[in-house]
Amino acid sequence: MVLVCKTGGAGDDEQWKAELRRLMPELEIRDWPDIGDPADVEFVLLFASAPGLFDGMTGLRAVLSAGAGVDGFVGDLPQGVPAARLVDPWMQTAMAAWIVHAVLHFSRNMPAYADQQARGVWREQFEAHFEPRRVGILGCGEIGRRTGSLLADLGFRVTGWTRTARDLAPLENLHGAAGLDELLGESEFLVCLLPLTPETEGLLDAGRLARLPEGAFFINASRGRIVVQQDLVAALDSGRLGGAWLDVTDPEPLPPGDPLWRRPDVWITPHVAGVTNPVTGAALVAENIRRARAGEPLTHPVDRNRGY
Amino acid sequence: MVLVCKTGGAGDDEQWKAELRRLMPELEIRDWPDIGDPADVEFVLLFASAPGLFDGMTGLRAVLSAGAGVDGFVGDLPQGVPAARLVDPWMQTAMAAWIVHAVLHFSRNMPAYADQQARGVWREQFEAHFEPRRVGILGCGEIGRRTGSLLADLGFRVTGWTRTARDLAPLENLHGAAGLDELLGESEFLVCLLPLTPETEGLLDAGRLARLPEGAFFINASRGRIVVQQDLVAALDSGRLGGAWLDVTDPEPLPPGDPLWRRPDVWITPHVAGVTNPVTGAALVAENIRRARAGEPLTHPVDRNRGY
Repeated sequence: MVLVCKTGGAGDDEQWKAELRRLMPELEIRDWPDIGDPADVEFVLLFASAPGLFDGMTGLRAVLSAGAGVDGFVGDLPQGVPAARLVDPWMQTAMAAWIVHAVLHFSRNMPAYADQQARGVWREQFEAHFEPRRVGILGCGEIGRRTGSLLADLGFRVTGWTRTARDLAPLENLHGAAGLDELLGESEFLVCLLPLTPETEGLLDAGRLARLPEGAFFINASRGRIVVQQDLVAALDSGRLGGAWLDVTDPEPLPPGDPLWRRPDVWITPHVAGVTNPVTGAALVAENIRRARAGEPLTHPVDRNRGY
Repeated sequence: MVLVCKTGGAGDDEQWKAELRRLMPELEIRDWPDIGDPADVEFVLLFASAPGLFDGMTGLRAVLSAGAGVDGFVGDLPQGVPAARLVDPWMQTAMAAWIVHAVLHFSRNMPAYADQQARGVWREQFEAHFEPRRVGILGCGEIGRRTGSLLADLGFRVTGWTRTARDLAPLENLHGAAGLDELLGESEFLVCLLPLTPETEGLLDAGRLARLPEGAFFINASRGRIVVQQDLVAALDSGRLGGAWLDVTDPEPLPPGDPLWRRPDVWITPHVAGVTNPVTGAALVAENIRRARAGEPLTHPVDRNRGY
């Protein structure tokens, strides 16, 4: 039973392999590109594809994602081979925590207090929002619901936007194109968790950003290309956006000279909101390997028509 | 029925008065120091005392705190007059959110990322703490439990320290002097929520700070004088502490020239973690006025022997 490992930094490779071997001693793990005879390969643990990666893998049973997003390989999946997303409660918590931090950073005036600190000024900003403040979450799968639930516990009123109507209680739900316009119009904090697909690429353009309330904050924890970056900058320049926290940019890494780095209203982290944990991840991957060998459906299967 | 209002900035006075009048139209509210005949006064809404404040208040039925802490007046309370703390779920959430923000700021390496951003550097810090990280909360009343519960939901292992043993489940509990030493020894993040009393003033001195794990983070949301500020600075200088977030200092406001302002490892907010909300607070105060007039015990009574 051969698995090819090409995690490309989504979790430490040695940790992935050690955990998988511990859980499945019968597994032979080969590192891309030294994979020997591709006809031996039953499984690929993958984050980002490469040209010819699947060539000759005639015995391939499943492709298992090493990260939360599958946009790095979904376009290359061989027909008829199932693939699974990595849906890890550990990572959901990590990502939700990163987003909670960003929302609180803006909602509690931390930029203003940091600025005051630099000048030795002790002065209360307006803190007393007695009505719950509104958060809109674009893309409300497992991570979005977990994030929304934590934000609701912190006193926010949270609405999740989905493609089709869903019961997200205790969160509110808006869906489809009309729902998106409505969500944008009411979101003081807009959180992007959408998967990157042909439908979502460039979704947040100048027109949609203009629907946000004056001074809204934008928080992106999924993929940089969902927002048109130059439109984001223009929305910040115009004051439509009061600030942005970006864990993802276009491109990545963000080039050292990019003006986004220097903006006082933008905070950047280098794609670390939801890092892969090979310890928890390997158990989920091993379960899907077991399922694939038993002829059972995978958990969290990729729908290649949706693109995630 | 006369209430004297002396909130001293713990909530907007006009909002306090408007809400109290709405809830209790029969209430006559007088602003300190223009209180007329002190013998008329049945209630005082108070944050910080003043010399002679209670003189002549022969009909005083109860003193009601306008803030979470009562150290501003507990020493002046007339004998035999009950007093109540303001225990407001709205404020608890606000305070818990401020603390959650501070813990995540340190646990997610935000200081390092801010430093990298200033230099245009995209580099992942060590993010993968696969074991739950440990938070110790000093003082685990309503606010501490709410904070601890939120941090537990965010993946932290939380221990609350109390004077006497208590069941804080799902949080762990340590108590008393031996428990304090144990808690300090294991807390990667130490959160102070203790009331300021003769017992807690200066509690966190050089000796106790030295028990913390190397590089621990200190977060103070209660009163500045619980920590010996020069010992805190020394613990930061020595590297024992990796950083501190202070909503409270000694004195307040922190003077413009205080070196704490300039430290890159210290973050300061001007006592805004748990501001008073007169809208929610007035309902709680009105309930205690009703109780006092009906001869019922107050909710959240102050124990003047404990000092809170």
